[in-house]
Amino acid sequence: MTPPFEYRTVDMTDEEFAEEQAVYGGLTEALRRLNEVSLRTTMPHDVILEATRKVEELSELLSAEMIPGNFGVVVTTSGHVRGYGNTVVGMRNAIAPPLKIVQDHVKGGASSEFFLNALYEGPPGKVHGGVLALVLDQIFGEAAAAGGTPGMTGTLTLRYRQPTPLGACSAEAWVDSTAGIKTIVKGALKDAEGNVTVEAEGLFILPRWAREQLAASGETPPQYE
Amino acid sequence: MTPPFEYRTVDMTDEEFAEEQAVYGGLTEALRRLNEVSLRTTMPHDVILEATRKVEELSELLSAEMIPGNFGVVVTTSGHVRGYGNTVVGMRNAIAPPLKIVQDHVKGGASSEFFLNALYEGPPGKVHGGVLALVLDQIFGEAAAAGGTPGMTGTLTLRYRQPTPLGACSAEAWVDSTAGIKTIVKGALKDAEGNVTVEAEGLFILPRWAREQLAASGETPPQYE
Repeated sequence: MTPPFEYRTVDMTDEEFAEEQAVYGGLTEALRRLNEVSLRTTMPHDVILEATRKVEELSELLSAEMIPGNFGVVVTTSGHVRGYGNTVVGMRNAIAPPLKIVQDHVKGGASSEFFLNALYEGPPGKVHGGVLALVLDQIFGEAAAAGGTPGMTGTLTLRYRQPTPLGACSAEAWVDSTAGIKTIVKGALKDAEGNVTVEAEGLFILPRWAREQLAASGETPPQYE
Repeated sequence: MTPPFEYRTVDMTDEEFAEEQAVYGGLTEALRRLNEVSLRTTMPHDVILEATRKVEELSELLSAEMIPGNFGVVVTTSGHVRGYGNTVVGMRNAIAPPLKIVQDHVKGGASSEFFLNALYEGPPGKVHGGVLALVLDQIFGEAAAAGGTPGMTGTLTLRYRQPTPLGACSAEAWVDSTAGIKTIVKGALKDAEGNVTVEAEGLFILPRWAREQLAASGETPPQYE
């Protein structure tokens, strides 16, 4: 069975990796702010039109040289894994909040504290229910991996207990049980007051191609950073 | 019981509404492109640093006047509902793909055809599983509303059948059954080839405050546009 995706390797030292993070990370942070400001601005139309032209000029400039499609996952020769494009944690993805997820390799779990601003709104003043599913899916996957049983999401069930106000949030997930290639992860999301607003359960399955690849290499799969 | 959120009303004619859509919609579209280009660009570091400065200047300019927090939902005096901030469909939200969702008020359902670019990546070349949950949650909510039984997501269960390649996707959802304030919605997401990649089921519940508000006004709740 052919792996549905592959990892690329690039030649890069630790120093080059750090500089890349600073430069591209800075651009992405600036864009995150511009995305939010552009949603909330009440400046007059002529200013908005002028800003639009400048944004278009920047796209023109930056698109002169770019990779042909999606970012993918790249492994550097110094051993860093660059999952820069990931929608939740990607360092170069301006739509990622981004989450910093802490993995617990001893107990098999993952947790994160993060802030969801006006861009993540569903009902007025509340986080979009689907955004909560999005962040939980990422945290759950990293919990399964931290537990030593990485996998792709098979099923995900979310129970919304109450609306989650925009702002500070936290979430944690832990491996509940494992059986062969299947791992059950459970977790919860809390609002700034510490109230549980969403409970969730996920089944993660290690695909056959990945099992074959792991067996051949004798290695554990790379983690995002 | 106090409604957890409220709708604001603004005085605006149809013409003003259309102009606002064109101006702010244009800025948001330009930003969507810049977000993607910035993820994929391979331009040298000095160009990236110069672009970062320009993005920061734009944030400075546009943040001179803005609403204090989240966008919320605004109803114009001409009857339009502006859910501009919504993460999935918001016209002024640069992180929204955005989806255009078609509601079927006769059969009680909703569907959408959309394109997910490199910004929506999870596994290399594939749509992030949580992004699929995000778009389905929005479509499911609109299906429940189209069926005459709007509500907040109570539970959402997703079954991932196979990875979804980045690119063109489609999804549809329909009201499966209703019982009092509870509505069960079912649906599926397909890749560009028409293969079902995700199946889902959701339970939507009309909160008590909304039932009281509807009973008092004799009206159906507004739809996003």
